[in-house]
Amino acid sequence: MSDTTKQSTEYFPGIAPVRFQGTSHCGDLSYRHYDPDRLILGKSMRDHLRLAACYWHTFVWPGNDVFGSGTFQRPWHAQAHPRATAMELARKKADAAFEFFTKLGVDFYTFHDVDVSPEGDNLKDYQRNFAEMVDVLEKKQGETGVRLLWGTANCFSHPRYAAGAATNPNPEVFAYAATQVFNALNATHRLGGANYVLWGGREGYETLLNTDLRREREQLGRFLNLVTEHKHKIGFEGPLLIEPKPQEPTKHQYDYDSATVFGFLQQYGLEKEIKVNIETNHATLAGHSLHHEVATAIFLGIFGSIDANRGDPQNGWDTDQFPNSVEEMTLAMYEILQGGGLVHGGFNFDTKVRRQSMDEVDLFHGHVGAIDVLALALERAARLIENETIENFKQNRYAGWSSTYGQQLLSGQVSLESIAHNALTDLIDPKPVSGRQEHLENVINRAIFG
Amino acid sequence: MSDTTKQSTEYFPGIAPVRFQGTSHCGDLSYRHYDPDRLILGKSMRDHLRLAACYWHTFVWPGNDVFGSGTFQRPWHAQAHPRATAMELARKKADAAFEFFTKLGVDFYTFHDVDVSPEGDNLKDYQRNFAEMVDVLEKKQGETGVRLLWGTANCFSHPRYAAGAATNPNPEVFAYAATQVFNALNATHRLGGANYVLWGGREGYETLLNTDLRREREQLGRFLNLVTEHKHKIGFEGPLLIEPKPQEPTKHQYDYDSATVFGFLQQYGLEKEIKVNIETNHATLAGHSLHHEVATAIFLGIFGSIDANRGDPQNGWDTDQFPNSVEEMTLAMYEILQGGGLVHGGFNFDTKVRRQSMDEVDLFHGHVGAIDVLALALERAARLIENETIENFKQNRYAGWSSTYGQQLLSGQVSLESIAHNALTDLIDPKPVSGRQEHLENVINRAIFG
Amino acid sequence: MSDTTKQSTEYFPGIAPVRFQGTSHCGDLSYRHYDPDRLILGKSMRDHLRLAACYWHTFVWPGNDVFGSGTFQRPWHAQAHPRATAMELARKKADAAFEFFTKLGVDFYTFHDVDVSPEGDNLKDYQRNFAEMVDVLEKKQGETGVRLLWGTANCFSHPRYAAGAATNPNPEVFAYAATQVFNALNATHRLGGANYVLWGGREGYETLLNTDLRREREQLGRFLNLVTEHKHKIGFEGPLLIEPKPQEPTKHQYDYDSATVFGFLQQYGLEKEIKVNIETNHATLAGHSLHHEVATAIFLGIFGSIDANRGDPQNGWDTDQFPNSVEEMTLAMYEILQGGGLVHGGFNFDTKVRRQSMDEVDLFHGHVGAIDVLALALERAARLIENETIENFKQNRYAGWSSTYGQQLLSGQVSLESIAHNALTDLIDPKPVSGRQEHLENVINRAIFG
Amino acid sequence: MSDTTKQSTEYFPGIAPVRFQGTSHCGDLSYRHYDPDRLILGKSMRDHLRLAACYWHTFVWPGNDVFGSGTFQRPWHAQAHPRATAMELARKKADAAFEFFTKLGVDFYTFHDVDVSPEGDNLKDYQRNFAEMVDVLEKKQGETGVRLLWGTANCFSHPRYAAGAATNPNPEVFAYAATQVFNALNATHRLGGANYVLWGGREGYETLLNTDLRREREQLGRFLNLVTEHKHKIGFEGPLLIEPKPQEPTKHQYDYDSATVFGFLQQYGLEKEIKVNIETNHATLAGHSLHHEVATAIFLGIFGSIDANRGDPQNGWDTDQFPNSVEEMTLAMYEILQGGGLVHGGFNFDTKVRRQSMDEVDLFHGHVGAIDVLALALERAARLIENETIENFKQNRYAGWSSTYGQQLLSGQVSLESIAHNALTDLIDPKPVSGRQEHLENVINRAIFG
Repeated sequence: MSDTTKQSTEYFPGIAPVRFQGTSHCGDLSYRHYDPDRLILGKSMRDHLRLAACYWHTFVWPGNDVFGSGTFQRPWHAQAHPRATAMELARKKADAAFEFFTKLGVDFYTFHDVDVSPEGDNLKDYQRNFAEMVDVLEKKQGETGVRLLWGTANCFSHPRYAAGAATNPNPEVFAYAATQVFNALNATHRLGGANYVLWGGREGYETLLNTDLRREREQLGRFLNLVTEHKHKIGFEGPLLIEPKPQEPTKHQYDYDSATVFGFLQQYGLEKEIKVNIETNHATLAGHSLHHEVATAIFLGIFGSIDANRGDPQNGWDTDQFPNSVEEMTLAMYEILQGGGLVHGGFNFDTKVRRQSMDEVDLFHGHVGAIDVLALALERAARLIENETIENFKQNRYAGWSSTYGQQLLSGQVSLESIAHNALTDLIDPKPVSGRQEHLENVINRAIFG
Repeated sequence: MSDTTKQSTEYFPGIAPVRFQGTSHCGDLSYRHYDPDRLILGKSMRDHLRLAACYWHTFVWPGNDVFGSGTFQRPWHAQAHPRATAMELARKKADAAFEFFTKLGVDFYTFHDVDVSPEGDNLKDYQRNFAEMVDVLEKKQGETGVRLLWGTANCFSHPRYAAGAATNPNPEVFAYAATQVFNALNATHRLGGANYVLWGGREGYETLLNTDLRREREQLGRFLNLVTEHKHKIGFEGPLLIEPKPQEPTKHQYDYDSATVFGFLQQYGLEKEIKVNIETNHATLAGHSLHHEVATAIFLGIFGSIDANRGDPQNGWDTDQFPNSVEEMTLAMYEILQGGGLVHGGFNFDTKVRRQSMDEVDLFHGHVGAIDVLALALERAARLIENETIENFKQNRYAGWSSTYGQQLLSGQVSLESIAHNALTDLIDPKPVSGRQEHLENVINRAIFG
Repeated sequence: MSDTTKQSTEYFPGIAPVRFQGTSHCGDLSYRHYDPDRLILGKSMRDHLRLAACYWHTFVWPGNDVFGSGTFQRPWHAQAHPRATAMELARKKADAAFEFFTKLGVDFYTFHDVDVSPEGDNLKDYQRNFAEMVDVLEKKQGETGVRLLWGTANCFSHPRYAAGAATNPNPEVFAYAATQVFNALNATHRLGGANYVLWGGREGYETLLNTDLRREREQLGRFLNLVTEHKHKIGFEGPLLIEPKPQEPTKHQYDYDSATVFGFLQQYGLEKEIKVNIETNHATLAGHSLHHEVATAIFLGIFGSIDANRGDPQNGWDTDQFPNSVEEMTLAMYEILQGGGLVHGGFNFDTKVRRQSMDEVDLFHGHVGAIDVLALALERAARLIENETIENFKQNRYAGWSSTYGQQLLSGQVSLESIAHNALTDLIDPKPVSGRQEHLENVINRAIFG
Repeated sequence: MSDTTKQSTEYFPGIAPVRFQGTSHCGDLSYRHYDPDRLILGKSMRDHLRLAACYWHTFVWPGNDVFGSGTFQRPWHAQAHPRATAMELARKKADAAFEFFTKLGVDFYTFHDVDVSPEGDNLKDYQRNFAEMVDVLEKKQGETGVRLLWGTANCFSHPRYAAGAATNPNPEVFAYAATQVFNALNATHRLGGANYVLWGGREGYETLLNTDLRREREQLGRFLNLVTEHKHKIGFEGPLLIEPKPQEPTKHQYDYDSATVFGFLQQYGLEKEIKVNIETNHATLAGHSLHHEVATAIFLGIFGSIDANRGDPQNGWDTDQFPNSVEEMTLAMYEILQGGGLVHGGFNFDTKVRRQSMDEVDLFHGHVGAIDVLALALERAARLIENETIENFKQNRYAGWSSTYGQQLLSGQVSLESIAHNALTDLIDPKPVSGRQEHLENVINRAIFG
């Protein structure tokens, strides 16, 4: 089947490109709030959000779960083309993906190596297939203008990775993973990727009874240093990003949350090299709000990018639903804007439609709604920045620490003894002051709802 | 009221000293498994466990909760002595406490400054009262042989600490807390305390809307450096211990878990100075097993001591129940023994009887049962050490990393590119190997149950 | 102290009555969305919402928690009036409460017996004090027009209730609780209360080891029948309401959630007599959304009223924060409107300001923000009702069940065998149909955000 | 391929039948505690436990999870027999299964219809294949003496069931499920099954936005009545069992927990007809202990059987691990023995080896360890029954309810008013009594550990 033939196939035939049409438009598949070139705080919405759609959930996943088989009948999947080779199917998938990205109007996409090309029977096949598909992707990027937010390697699905990749008890598995990351990072570099992501996958443990935590951490530390060295060698300028997650598939994942990752990075001298890609659903599974994870990563200096999705507050696993809370996203967006905004990172939809949402149009419903949620959150967060109430409140609350007294305490030039001595001499008796939490929550709601 | 008069009062009149009497004895208040001088792996049970009872839950708490008032009518509490002064009550409480420690047969105890002496009306009162009670405690220690496992300062109960101590927006509160820690650390030093503990209390946030995470972390970093400097100045040789907890009383506590504390300590150059005091209930509230927290702290080099209690697996708050699972404690004990055992630290019962267990005898039931649980866990863990099955399994599982190939990968002398090159040349194809989790779980049960 | 004197004291002197002033007004203490007499779907906002403030958190609680003492210095609390009697304090509290209700502009209030009057030394004192304060409340209601949404009895705070009230192992405690409920229900009736609430308090267990589940359930069944019989005897026309909660203060509360309460009510023939008062924070602690609990209670025919608050999604205890999510409340409001709206019930603020929000003005910030949230949710839910998208989607989705075939299956006149026989004969092969979840979530957001 | 040929294949060639050999035996694959014919409280261990292994996890599941493909290379799976037909594979699977049951020495097994036979292309295929395999199973049962604990129908894996079976919006899906249950119940009857199980599968909702709770409940009520009627018609004497689960695969499963099921059964007049099959992991996901669910089902009169497994306390999904806590199982076993023991039900291992435990021997490790855990729990629970401490404590604790006063309160012949009147006249003032929780916990540990 020739390239020309393939191009003529439309995988989403009934769906027109999604455009901004405002809130007065009635159709389901238009943007009501995402107006890409509208300026917010002097920057366009598209440059603030750097929206990306992902390959895996949207073009690879067949709709299976642990209790049932796939419900999706995608026109680019194998069952629709019983005689197609794996590489032919990979090209169809790429066609479908770029048709989707283009119709959706996102500026970026993301992929794992084995999302875009078949693994084949051995490492040579893997490398050849992948190289061939990188050519395809490069061509597609050129034709459509869609860019790569980040690439990554899938070092967790194949049985060889059952006990981890870099942290595997078998050094050959470490080497296998290194080979995939070598290829995926090179590909990301060639495709102009803005970042490169390392999700922990199965870097964790199922039981401490068979696990040497010290060894596995050393292995992971070395692995990440290898990747960092390679990044510099090839001149890749985007950040490396670790994606924290507390558990699943393993009982305990080593990259539990941003604070844990920070401790790890410091131990291996990587805290200036590697940042985090924060996923909402991973944050909530770790017992944190997205707001917390974003604020923590920013003040620790390791904030990189966002996997924009949501979990189900009543379910204890990674549901990867589309973000639909403007309230939640406004708080995260406020921190991001206060922190200077996204530079290399973006908002990637690591999201999947529900298993019951088996029609192709559902892929559009999910993304369009989520994009409008982010646009609304951006606009509301900008209001909070502009009215300065939150920021001013904080400034006043901590004003005492800017006084001579406060500065002296932090200076390192007074001792515990002298502080105690002075406190006793002065009989200090500080009184509590209201934190005004309820008022500040109202300030947020007034920015969101008027 | 003279010392002599006080000594003549017995607060637990019907209860004889608890002794080891083995499993054939029928009474409820004897040790069936804790035989203090029995040697396990060449060390006495008492030296392995370094058992401590705490002052606060056992002698101070009146049995109230958020939904109801105190149910305890302790003979040393104020309502039994309506005309006693605060200092007289403090002396009675000390009498009761040391009678309890002695009858229970624990070698150690633990306290907060304001558990043992009344705060008074100002810092001067506080210091004077505390100094007076430290004299009393010193005398009691001498009379009974009971030693201090650790002291600490309560910088969270008074309204002045509503917004934190070291992390308070008001520097005077920082200074107030510093004054308490100065006194409590000095007292701990004088009383021969083996460690000094810093529990985060309200070092955390209720809402990010009024919180400057960066400032508060800087404050906390400085505070802990002040304490560390003072420790060295006075020649206190025991470790400083931070006690991780994820939430409660604040929505988010900064000392979330051991991995988070490790990241913090590294940032402020304290990872060689400060260790952790791990509490079971805090571990489980943080989404970890006790086993995980102990193993993590040990391999990170920051393991210090244990607050032995348990939470309720179905409840989401700190219930501080007595440890009653030999299965759970055996795993933690195994890690501790593998890590070289407790040196300065111990097993402190940061535990409270249920609000319905309002009789003094219930205090004994709780502690006696818990001590036997730890003794059983110690004995079972020693079996695991001796039979070496777990350790040998781990050694074999990671054997590949001791090969030339494995060592080279970790050496820092090969690049990602050369690893990938070799993998491709060799067409490596590593196969997964069983982790034998079910077998290893059986090994544990066979050590516990025969 | 005479009534006149008391009336002249203003407890919230700097605060003017809160009025609707729309979104263009800048002040913090006005309603931007709650416009009491504005019609929504033909009914005024005030009649839709039937807003109530509660006595306990707002006028009784001193701001203590398990880890610290009270931070509030209320001008009606004892420490401000060291020489006042308990009854004098109760009158001051009533003055403060009705000043608050009036300034806030809520139409209803709620109380426990011992919130409004001191328990005294015995049951006679209790009854006399309570009767006297009911006179005061009746007078205040007459003066202000504020009405009673519901009364209840506190059968959980006093130590006698440590092991439960109706489910206590001691029948005298059952009788004591019966006496309180007798008085509180009579008082509620006299004060024109619209409902009477029974919160489980400590009706549950701490450990199954000392608990006879069968007996305790029988006791509770009898107790509720006693109350139901009394209600009819005195002619109280409002519903009795059970308030589900899964745990806290007990490890397991018998009234776990609405579905559990439904099973209990059926067993004791009470499913037509007693309804539920659903609290948001209790719903989420039980592993449900508020939306779920409201929808479940409505379709089971036991929906009564709402305790409008929220928990913290990251904390495992009852935080009773003010509702601040329009997104969450819109879904619940939609179900309530679809179910015919509130009749006897209302939205009661079972909410408390944070312990750090120690100023009286914080009480206003909390309530005003929450009231606007409910007003917004009402307005948005009305849009959903009016555009009918959700309802129409559901109608179409289940249309097959209105067909002859569907009706027959449900009729009770076909057997399993005949259904199987026909399925085989027809070789039925039903295909899955998209549930359009993402689209429907977008419909909700478009109703909320335009 | 003839039956004879098949019988000659041994699927677990290196593994001898597992026998009781006591605690002095060193091998890994023997029973140390499960001695089938040993009498406990006058009944053999095998008759107490009625152990069953399941078909699905052990013989069907390939070791995949949401993040990776299958790791198991079973000699009876398709990849080992690329040319075998589906029915040939089904026969091989049955051979492997019965070899396993026999070597393990369990008396029972359990299956879903589609575990044992291929679905084929349509309902006719399904029925024919299943009938053929039921013949095979019957023969195997006869040859081995292994009996069927229960059968069930898988009405959740196929895409047609994406939106539920009985609760599907499409009545044809209801009919399809009815056809499967008709066949599976008939097969269970023919094979002498002791029970028939109905697990909710996807009877629940993903979002309330597209769900009519009332309709779906009506459908489910009718469905279960159809099954009940059919059971009686064919003379099946075993109980029908619903298996509660709170969530997963759906966001909310209707059979949330035992209390919820009880409410449902009452509404449809089924509380005497249907019981529950309690699974440990489902109990803990619902926020309950296994102990709670067992005790609740027993006192509600709906206890049927146990799916013996465990979840991971730190993970929020159904991990179906092997039970390995004697402490946990002893409490459940105590309730079961107190409730009269298992009659029709048994302990079924609805358990799966970890994805990393890919060897066939791991299947034995998992089951053997779990069986010894149950044997230990049985023996320890029997000690608790024999020493009567727990039971006597409970009797004494509630003794007041057997007095005239207590009986009168429950009699229905006194009114709330007369209770209150008498309480006031007598000025009752009941005092709290210790619940002795810590003591009772010690009693449990002494039964378990001596």
